[in-house]
Amino acid sequence: MIIRIEPESEIPIYIQLTNQIIIGIAKGDLQPGDSLPSVRSFAADLGVNMHTVNKSYHELEKRGIIEIIPKSGAVIRKTLHIDRDTYNRLFEMFQPLIAEALVLGMTKEELVDLVEGIMKKMST
Amino acid sequence: MIIRIEPESEIPIYIQLTNQIIIGIAKGDLQPGDSLPSVRSFAADLGVNMHTVNKSYHELEKRGIIEIIPKSGAVIRKTLHIDRDTYNRLFEMFQPLIAEALVLGMTKEELVDLVEGIMKKMST
Repeated sequence: MIIRIEPESEIPIYIQLTNQIIIGIAKGDLQPGDSLPSVRSFAADLGVNMHTVNKSYHELEKRGIIEIIPKSGAVIRKTLHIDRDTYNRLFEMFQPLIAEALVLGMTKEELVDLVEGIMKKMST
Repeated sequence: MIIRIEPESEIPIYIQLTNQIIIGIAKGDLQPGDSLPSVRSFAADLGVNMHTVNKSYHELEKRGIIEIIPKSGAVIRKTLHIDRDTYNRLFEMFQPLIAEALVLGMTKEELVDLVEGIMKKMST
């Protein structure tokens, strides 16, 4: 799995890393039950600070995507059916993005096509 | 139009304000050609720093949603058909969110329903 970090981006590096890991899981490059690299080795591979990797792992844990298990490290969780709180959180995250797409002139059909196009690249 | 700012949120206040303005436009509460309040009065109304409102207006300008016109202030632009760069930027923003929804157990059908549900609330 290829992680692309753009140091020049406005998006904080730990969020870039979080996003790339989530996309990797969605594409099937990473599977539930897989371990993520140790913080130390991942940081060295990516050329980023250990603190950045650590922050990303905690973000993934908070969102229910990985478990941090003592001695085993970060493990990708098996997903269950989405709960109401998570649905609401996703709703709140999607809303401004959808609003922006429409405001910038995308039609509803184009927006559904965009979403379906992205989903087609994902295996789950 | 009601602006809700949550000072306790992890989302920076200027991004919350930016999102709320975009959602307001998408819902038709604000129309192309409408002026936004002056930085000073908006900051006072919302109980936030003038710098925060200013940063939000510059963010909206950068994304092509408003124009900042000398003397007139911030005016909502008429949208044209979306260009390739904007499409690519939206694609990059949607991708991690869609990945997360799928990874957390949402089905593709549920995700399209979520997107369509949000669009139904928007007038544009």
